[in-house]
Amino acid sequence: MATRRGDTLCFSHPPILASWAAVGGKKEGEGPLAAAFDALYPDNRMGQSGWEAAEVQLFVRAARLCMKKAKITEKQVSLVLAGDLQAQCTASSYALRELGLPFAGVFGACSTMAETLGLGACLCSAGLADGLLALTGSHFCAAERQFRTPLSYGAVRTPTAQWTATAAGACLLRPAGEGVGIHAVTFGRVQDYGVKDINNMGAAMAPAAAATLLRYFADTGTAPEDFDAIYTGDLGQVGSGLFRELMTAEGVVMKNHQDCGCLLYDTEQQTVKSGGSGPGCSAAVLCGYILPRLERGRARRVLFLATGALMSQTTFLQKESIPAIAHLVELRSPGC
Amino acid sequence: MATRRGDTLCFSHPPILASWAAVGGKKEGEGPLAAAFDALYPDNRMGQSGWEAAEVQLFVRAARLCMKKAKITEKQVSLVLAGDLQAQCTASSYALRELGLPFAGVFGACSTMAETLGLGACLCSAGLADGLLALTGSHFCAAERQFRTPLSYGAVRTPTAQWTATAAGACLLRPAGEGVGIHAVTFGRVQDYGVKDINNMGAAMAPAAAATLLRYFADTGTAPEDFDAIYTGDLGQVGSGLFRELMTAEGVVMKNHQDCGCLLYDTEQQTVKSGGSGPGCSAAVLCGYILPRLERGRARRVLFLATGALMSQTTFLQKESIPAIAHLVELRSPGC
Repeated sequence: MATRRGDTLCFSHPPILASWAAVGGKKEGEGPLAAAFDALYPDNRMGQSGWEAAEVQLFVRAARLCMKKAKITEKQVSLVLAGDLQAQCTASSYALRELGLPFAGVFGACSTMAETLGLGACLCSAGLADGLLALTGSHFCAAERQFRTPLSYGAVRTPTAQWTATAAGACLLRPAGEGVGIHAVTFGRVQDYGVKDINNMGAAMAPAAAATLLRYFADTGTAPEDFDAIYTGDLGQVGSGLFRELMTAEGVVMKNHQDCGCLLYDTEQQTVKSGGSGPGCSAAVLCGYILPRLERGRARRVLFLATGALMSQTTFLQKESIPAIAHLVELRSPGC
Repeated sequence: MATRRGDTLCFSHPPILASWAAVGGKKEGEGPLAAAFDALYPDNRMGQSGWEAAEVQLFVRAARLCMKKAKITEKQVSLVLAGDLQAQCTASSYALRELGLPFAGVFGACSTMAETLGLGACLCSAGLADGLLALTGSHFCAAERQFRTPLSYGAVRTPTAQWTATAAGACLLRPAGEGVGIHAVTFGRVQDYGVKDINNMGAAMAPAAAATLLRYFADTGTAPEDFDAIYTGDLGQVGSGLFRELMTAEGVVMKNHQDCGCLLYDTEQQTVKSGGSGPGCSAAVLCGYILPRLERGRARRVLFLATGALMSQTTFLQKESIPAIAHLVELRSPGC
């Protein structure tokens, strides 16, 4: 069960993350977190007929690896919460066609992993799911033609642009037991500072990250120094700078902030411009880097604050500004 | 709290629907349920610059009318679960930008109202939300250019095609109190019988409706005669026929079945071909017709089984078949 404090739910008996898995593509396998992945594809086509089908493959593989690591079969999963960036979330739906499990689709763009963990933690803590899979990912090539232009156009990328990760992450949640605990959840509110540049998503999302984090601090009476690290995902370098500026303007200095979009790639060497993005970015960094650190006790209490830009190519062409959202989960190492 | 029986969650203390509102467009105001709407727009542009923006307007109006009918302000809503058919669910996100409430986006295509009610009931019954809005809708003109062709092309519609409703529905859920109760929820599993015809969504969705309903009957030991009515949404006439055939083949005769897609319009007179569709269709029929019947005791126990086709224009052009899902909620009149 949970106690409500403002927009934040605090779990007295925290649900736990029993297992997790991260799967990535070629560029992810060339980056600083290569060793963190459970599986890497050397070819982003992954033996499929198209980029969208390759993304489905990423989801299925992440889900199956996660179940395998938890030593469970599909019969022990009560519900899957999954979402993605493709129009009508088809990566998730086609993956769930293959997995054949009870499924509730979510949409939170790049914030999806935090959203599924948040909803999943609520459902588990209430005894509504014994084993719940939180699943998301993205594919660079599918996202480029979904939101910008097909790759073969060879469009030049701006310095503020981010690189959609070809990656997926899956987490298995349980009501109780041994594992990393989900101690609190804050669902975000949509923020829109009028940014219209689809090649500067970090600027569009930074206000959402700041708004949710400030609300969480106010709801729980905490401050940055109460945490070993505060991970945003995925503001990139431009968005991270803006986020820290917004927090400083509110009197909160962020010394222990890291961004999943800056962790996944070597932003100097890998030509990803401002950094990584896409639901797969924060999902893979969570499953490959953050959760193992918590499991091994290298960090004891962290915040995972995934951000999503909620526009489409249609609203972009209609010259609408980009609304954004950020959802937060508080994670603690086992027994903490 | 709830008890799990197979894929079905049964609530010992059922969360309730405290209020609801339905908003519709021009054709909906000319149909048999015209009097059931809380508000009708005579012009589907609704004073907005485009069809997508008009859809946002429908969502905002439905949400505000629902809160007004419950005599609450926005401060008394802990969370909104909303989703829609636009790519990247932008109708919901832009509506939530206007409403400014904590928001978790969902995607279930035309099954969205049952999905939000199901997830919302779980969250409420666990004490995780005091007031929760379940919100969805659709707009004919936005959906046509999203999934088929822009209206100005004047494409001919096939007899199996369905008409996406220009409508939205909003429900306010509470953990307990006076109202229509949500007694059980079954989240569906994706079904795909290989249908590839985007103008025959009823055929694609009928197997999903049958699969979820059969699972609910098996989980709860019930049969059709235990209910005053079983509402599918939105199979249309073609899909409803196929659904009843599939059920008959499993030995279940559906005498009390009605379909939201056949209730919303006069399928003889209104040139909607097989019937209505879109998340707004089942949402509006629920809020305008089914819930008032339960409230007044004209029905005591019903099943609301909303179906969704989970393809996109991309997967259609890639010649993928159409996966579908159906989510079910069991509703009972106050005190039942």
